[in-house]
Amino acid sequence: MDTDRHPTEHQHVVFDDGLALECGVTLKRLVVAYRTYGRLNAERSNAVLICHALTGDQYVAETHPVTGKPGWWDMVVGPGRPIDTDRLFVVCANVLGGCMGTTGPRSPRDDNGGSPWGTDFPPVTIRDMVHAQKRLICHLGIKRLFAVVGGSMGGMQALDWAAAYPESVFAAVPIATAAYHSAQNIAFHEVGRQAIFADPDWQGGRYWETDKIPARGLAVARMAAHITYLSEQALTRKFGRRLRGQPGDRSGLSLFGDIFEVESYLQHQGSTFVRRFDANSYLTITRAMDFFDLAAEYGGDLSKAFAGTSTRFCLVSFSSDWLFPTAESRTIARALNRAAANVSFVEIPSDKGHDAFLLDEPDFHRTLAGFLAGCAEHAGLPS
Amino acid sequence: MDTDRHPTEHQHVVFDDGLALECGVTLKRLVVAYRTYGRLNAERSNAVLICHALTGDQYVAETHPVTGKPGWWDMVVGPGRPIDTDRLFVVCANVLGGCMGTTGPRSPRDDNGGSPWGTDFPPVTIRDMVHAQKRLICHLGIKRLFAVVGGSMGGMQALDWAAAYPESVFAAVPIATAAYHSAQNIAFHEVGRQAIFADPDWQGGRYWETDKIPARGLAVARMAAHITYLSEQALTRKFGRRLRGQPGDRSGLSLFGDIFEVESYLQHQGSTFVRRFDANSYLTITRAMDFFDLAAEYGGDLSKAFAGTSTRFCLVSFSSDWLFPTAESRTIARALNRAAANVSFVEIPSDKGHDAFLLDEPDFHRTLAGFLAGCAEHAGLPS
Repeated sequence: MDTDRHPTEHQHVVFDDGLALECGVTLKRLVVAYRTYGRLNAERSNAVLICHALTGDQYVAETHPVTGKPGWWDMVVGPGRPIDTDRLFVVCANVLGGCMGTTGPRSPRDDNGGSPWGTDFPPVTIRDMVHAQKRLICHLGIKRLFAVVGGSMGGMQALDWAAAYPESVFAAVPIATAAYHSAQNIAFHEVGRQAIFADPDWQGGRYWETDKIPARGLAVARMAAHITYLSEQALTRKFGRRLRGQPGDRSGLSLFGDIFEVESYLQHQGSTFVRRFDANSYLTITRAMDFFDLAAEYGGDLSKAFAGTSTRFCLVSFSSDWLFPTAESRTIARALNRAAANVSFVEIPSDKGHDAFLLDEPDFHRTLAGFLAGCAEHAGLPS
Repeated sequence: MDTDRHPTEHQHVVFDDGLALECGVTLKRLVVAYRTYGRLNAERSNAVLICHALTGDQYVAETHPVTGKPGWWDMVVGPGRPIDTDRLFVVCANVLGGCMGTTGPRSPRDDNGGSPWGTDFPPVTIRDMVHAQKRLICHLGIKRLFAVVGGSMGGMQALDWAAAYPESVFAAVPIATAAYHSAQNIAFHEVGRQAIFADPDWQGGRYWETDKIPARGLAVARMAAHITYLSEQALTRKFGRRLRGQPGDRSGLSLFGDIFEVESYLQHQGSTFVRRFDANSYLTITRAMDFFDLAAEYGGDLSKAFAGTSTRFCLVSFSSDWLFPTAESRTIARALNRAAANVSFVEIPSDKGHDAFLLDEPDFHRTLAGFLAGCAEHAGLPS
């Protein structure tokens, strides 16, 4: 095990003993790229693991090294923020299968001369991601996490952490998530994958051999997904039917180009995404989400995933989220209640859709801060 | 004007005086392909115009000449059916811009040597489609339609008929529709268009010059759209998380192929669609839907579109339709009420999503039959 010798610019740790995956394959070498914020206290009791979503990464609360944009959860993580780095030590790792430094399809394969894994990268699961994070957490000398927090796919990881390592998770905050991926969500992912497969520049996944990337296919995938992250209300509020050209000018009618503002917005989402994300990682991680079905791992009874747990849970959903609707959080809450777990469940009224967890939602931020403050008291964290 | 001399197999009428379009272009020659069912009575008072949806066509109640499948509304149209061809004379025309015989991007352009219009086909609107249908209806010697009936984009046409030709529409049945296309719906259409544009076989729209069609791009467009036609409940009921392979067999985890049943279903929807539909028609017709905003044509007040109308309206929505949700029908109902129109409005409880109007929904069929029976009495149609 060695730190920071991998030729990437991302801070990382290398585990030379590798990682056994659920599919049966063992990665001979595991790299986990991560970032930390705040200071680990002497008792090592104030660590919060943040789990990122499908297209997120470890740059939670600082300028992103590729895009130059603020961290994706700058509003939530920082001094005096709901996850207060004056008190808490925050860790976020790029997920297994990702493209920001952690082992994934872009990494050199470890069973031959070192060309990228590409589409030969083994299929990974949410549990595999959690196992990789656990290695990092042990490496950092942390036995018990004060909290595991994540939205969307990050919420799946938070749930899975609580199920896999109950004694290592004092509190868990699964946000805008579900205990399984629904048929509709699998279907949307499949559209994205087919768009990537359809792009000849994907080249069967071996695009690193040329100087082309499947930019158009990946952009279409992102556009389709992006709609599911918003809500009809948010799109109507932001764009409605506003035209880019002159209103009422019929001569501007055209098959092509972006006529409505919502179209240029979507196209922008697609084109900026491909600059920072790897298509094969997108395939790998969407599959990991599709495979996720926590109850199925426990004989079909979700409450068994949490039997005897002493973890404190706070479930958060957003009223206009149709990708991971409130009903999915309610299902988790019921299972936790059946397991006699300590659980609170809040639906935040919002018209911003699934992405609300990333946006300025004061009610959500107050909920998160309040829950963590209560847990800190119970955990005896020095304030 | 001449009938049945166009070298296509579809029954049609040719209007050599062309059609002036809303964009300012005049088509010098207009072909309208259509089918009829039942017999026009001596008074010519029993005609029902059925308007088809985005990917529908005129083969409403008979075997489809391309797919060999039953007509798309066989359950609704026929002897003894809700739209009873023992009593009523049913007409359905392929829409302007379509690919089943009516003038569209696949037709020879009329301003030069006769190569297909392709993407030079002028942008058309729902109103243009209605104008083309009106020509057909006049050609058939019908002054007043007993009813105009349509779902989804067909419902937009039914609304537009009632607005454009109130004296020619005794009854209108707009089903699962809206008076404008929402930002979210435009966004989904844009994803489909971008998927087509991204397919190199689209060749800038000039794919007729090769023996290739943009099959993969069009299939992705269809897959994305198809999800919006269903509902989360319907997808869960039909497919859930069922795997194609052995359940619990982790070795089957793979990035590729169709692992979940919902994926093979979607892929099938995509691949069968491209055999019957033209990509440039898809671009043209999705644009026509996006342009639709009936209130905007009447100074932003939808009720003015129906001022003084004597048309009897029956609005139908389906509870799980999230593409054209019940709220959109309610908006239309309110506008009709403000116009003191005769309107009934029924939300059919269904978990089948937008496509419910095409499926076995006995409540819907009873509603439709009952409304038409009542209208027949008011119209003095012989029973």
